[in-house]
Amino acid sequence: MQRIEKANQKAIDRMVAGDPVLVDVIPAARAIPALKDRMILHAGPPIEWGRMCGPMRGAIMGIAVFEGWADDLAEAESMAAAGEFEFHPNHHFDAVGPMTGMTTFSQPLMVVENATYGNRAYCAINEGLGKVMRFGGNDAEVLERLCWLRDDFGPSLGRALRHMDGLPLKSLVARGLTMGDEMHQRNVACSGLTLRALSPVLAATSDTNEALAKALAFMGDNDQFFLNIAMAMGKSIMDPVRDIEGASVVTAMCRNGTDFGIRVSGTGDAWFTSPVEMPAGLYFPGFTEKDANPDMGDSTIVETIGLGGFAMGAAPAVAGFVGAGAASEAGHYTRTMSEIAIAENPEWTIPSMDYLGVPTGIDIRLVVETGLAPTINTGIAHREPGVGQVGAGVVRAPMACFEKALLALAASLGVS
Amino acid sequence: MQRIEKANQKAIDRMVAGDPVLVDVIPAARAIPALKDRMILHAGPPIEWGRMCGPMRGAIMGIAVFEGWADDLAEAESMAAAGEFEFHPNHHFDAVGPMTGMTTFSQPLMVVENATYGNRAYCAINEGLGKVMRFGGNDAEVLERLCWLRDDFGPSLGRALRHMDGLPLKSLVARGLTMGDEMHQRNVACSGLTLRALSPVLAATSDTNEALAKALAFMGDNDQFFLNIAMAMGKSIMDPVRDIEGASVVTAMCRNGTDFGIRVSGTGDAWFTSPVEMPAGLYFPGFTEKDANPDMGDSTIVETIGLGGFAMGAAPAVAGFVGAGAASEAGHYTRTMSEIAIAENPEWTIPSMDYLGVPTGIDIRLVVETGLAPTINTGIAHREPGVGQVGAGVVRAPMACFEKALLALAASLGVS
Repeated sequence: MQRIEKANQKAIDRMVAGDPVLVDVIPAARAIPALKDRMILHAGPPIEWGRMCGPMRGAIMGIAVFEGWADDLAEAESMAAAGEFEFHPNHHFDAVGPMTGMTTFSQPLMVVENATYGNRAYCAINEGLGKVMRFGGNDAEVLERLCWLRDDFGPSLGRALRHMDGLPLKSLVARGLTMGDEMHQRNVACSGLTLRALSPVLAATSDTNEALAKALAFMGDNDQFFLNIAMAMGKSIMDPVRDIEGASVVTAMCRNGTDFGIRVSGTGDAWFTSPVEMPAGLYFPGFTEKDANPDMGDSTIVETIGLGGFAMGAAPAVAGFVGAGAASEAGHYTRTMSEIAIAENPEWTIPSMDYLGVPTGIDIRLVVETGLAPTINTGIAHREPGVGQVGAGVVRAPMACFEKALLALAASLGVS
Repeated sequence: MQRIEKANQKAIDRMVAGDPVLVDVIPAARAIPALKDRMILHAGPPIEWGRMCGPMRGAIMGIAVFEGWADDLAEAESMAAAGEFEFHPNHHFDAVGPMTGMTTFSQPLMVVENATYGNRAYCAINEGLGKVMRFGGNDAEVLERLCWLRDDFGPSLGRALRHMDGLPLKSLVARGLTMGDEMHQRNVACSGLTLRALSPVLAATSDTNEALAKALAFMGDNDQFFLNIAMAMGKSIMDPVRDIEGASVVTAMCRNGTDFGIRVSGTGDAWFTSPVEMPAGLYFPGFTEKDANPDMGDSTIVETIGLGGFAMGAAPAVAGFVGAGAASEAGHYTRTMSEIAIAENPEWTIPSMDYLGVPTGIDIRLVVETGLAPTINTGIAHREPGVGQVGAGVVRAPMACFEKALLALAASLGVS
């Protein structure tokens, strides 16, 4: 169908022309004016409290206490069950969030602007490792860190970014791909490059040496600091690709821990969902697959733009971490994902594969034809609220999402 | 010869047991008490003024002005020609220096201590790119930067390192190898990891935000910042390997721009030299091979410990920069160097080669037997004083050094 080819070319052109810049950190209430009291944005496609998984519930209980809507976790749980909170996907409000993906009005959000199209996308600041809300953590340590991000670190980061007129991300990610990152489960290079670019400006704009030292240590101790920036970047690149009539390119993939959902350019904002799968991976000492929650989070936006599992060839060291086989065979994942992508990214290339561009523009027709579902590198959360990360692995997007989307696209084009 | 095997095993054990830690920055006069007025340490094996190449002469003229021994470059040149300076190799004083490798008494030197054996090795701070003394630069811009390193940056870095009880280098380099560095022509990852570790401490110990911002920007803008640290590390690892009777392991390789020299464990501090070769490489726009000076510097100490050209497989992106062929074939260099090395480093491994350890312990017998001379990734200096870097390339150590050393080792063992 020439009509679909043309539409897809338009989609690819917009993806490649995207120019994401990290420009600011601002309170969520300012970034998303529609965000009201007792309104909670979560990862993945829409879901009600009754169907939410353990870590998602744990995070909701924690964030309700953080926002002062409940005095304690028990009260928060009762309120949630009684329907006192309004739940929406991040994706409905220009935002994304890792794992549980909590976004509420007083949190600081990083702002990535797509300079080519003027749209903005938002993501909260990565909390670091250990007990954190994105994995369903909700105790005092977790909430205290969120307060520090809101009151201290977030505002400093925003001030530095405004002072330097933003941090361009396209070239930074290109460099990260030459340094072993795939930007989903491995962000050590891009986190370091970000720190390197920001640290002189943080020094020039910081109030006290103590606050500055704490901020630099927080960024430096977190190899995944860049993940949330990569996610907002992904959202800012894909949003201008939405709603191209006839285009069969995936514009979003995400999971709420219960359902996996995708959006496709030609079918606008419709979600095509299917029960989410369990990652196959490696567990931290003391944990097994029995402890694992099924796949979760908006972070699959990085695979949607050709990174993560699609860029595995750039990151041989991540293959072992996610249990994806021999490091020397990491390029196999990238080559396989090339079979379901329309193009190669001319600017994001993999040196060890002789500068092959990462697979760009997932075509739902190719997914269904080849039977190859997108490969996703993911973190694994404990199935109970309040525990945290227990491992990392590889998961496939459920094929049913793509089959449903293809039928809907065909219908929209008058093909039965 | 079982005697040589035993001696070599001792050499390898000492190399692998080395535990290099960057502990301080101190004035050269304190680091090396023998350093006197009008005494200049240079890269490579011993050489007199009359045989020195252009960039080496340029650097000597510049450093004499910097130290206040001459009012201007012309006077410095006359003094050098008149024999008013005393020249010695860095290697004779526990030190190393990149390219021209100038070490004089008021320069700040980074101190790497081998915690296992207690020995210390020294190297000046990397000046950055552009016009710099290590490439023979000697104008006002070059000298001003040296003053700032001496008066401001060096002391801050030393204070931070003392405050944090030093920066362990072995694990940092292991990490850098998973991030595309080979630690000779590519140090972007290790430079970033160093900045990341140091920045919170610099913030906590810095006098003013302005000085701190300048220091962080200087480190962050220099992808080769770590090279000089890697060199002092290499020296600190190899010095305890010197003087093992019968050992055929190379303990130093270096060049003064005229001669290439090596030292071998079993022959102690004797130098085996041969005219240095011209690198085959790629030139910056506007320069050609006609502008190039032959190979220069003590930086080949990193190949001596299994990094640089020996670790090319870890750094596919460097292959293009040094003109070493297809990025996907970078591992070929590492495999070839394995043929002249006795062991694999168990802690420094290359993910894309399924965690193959870097080739460790160059055996002069294997070099002569196989006809494979060590591969070195190197920067290329302009042949005239005062110009600077004009390219980067790959060069082989001259085979004659190894043949001479093998004869001397045989003689020392009573074998004719």
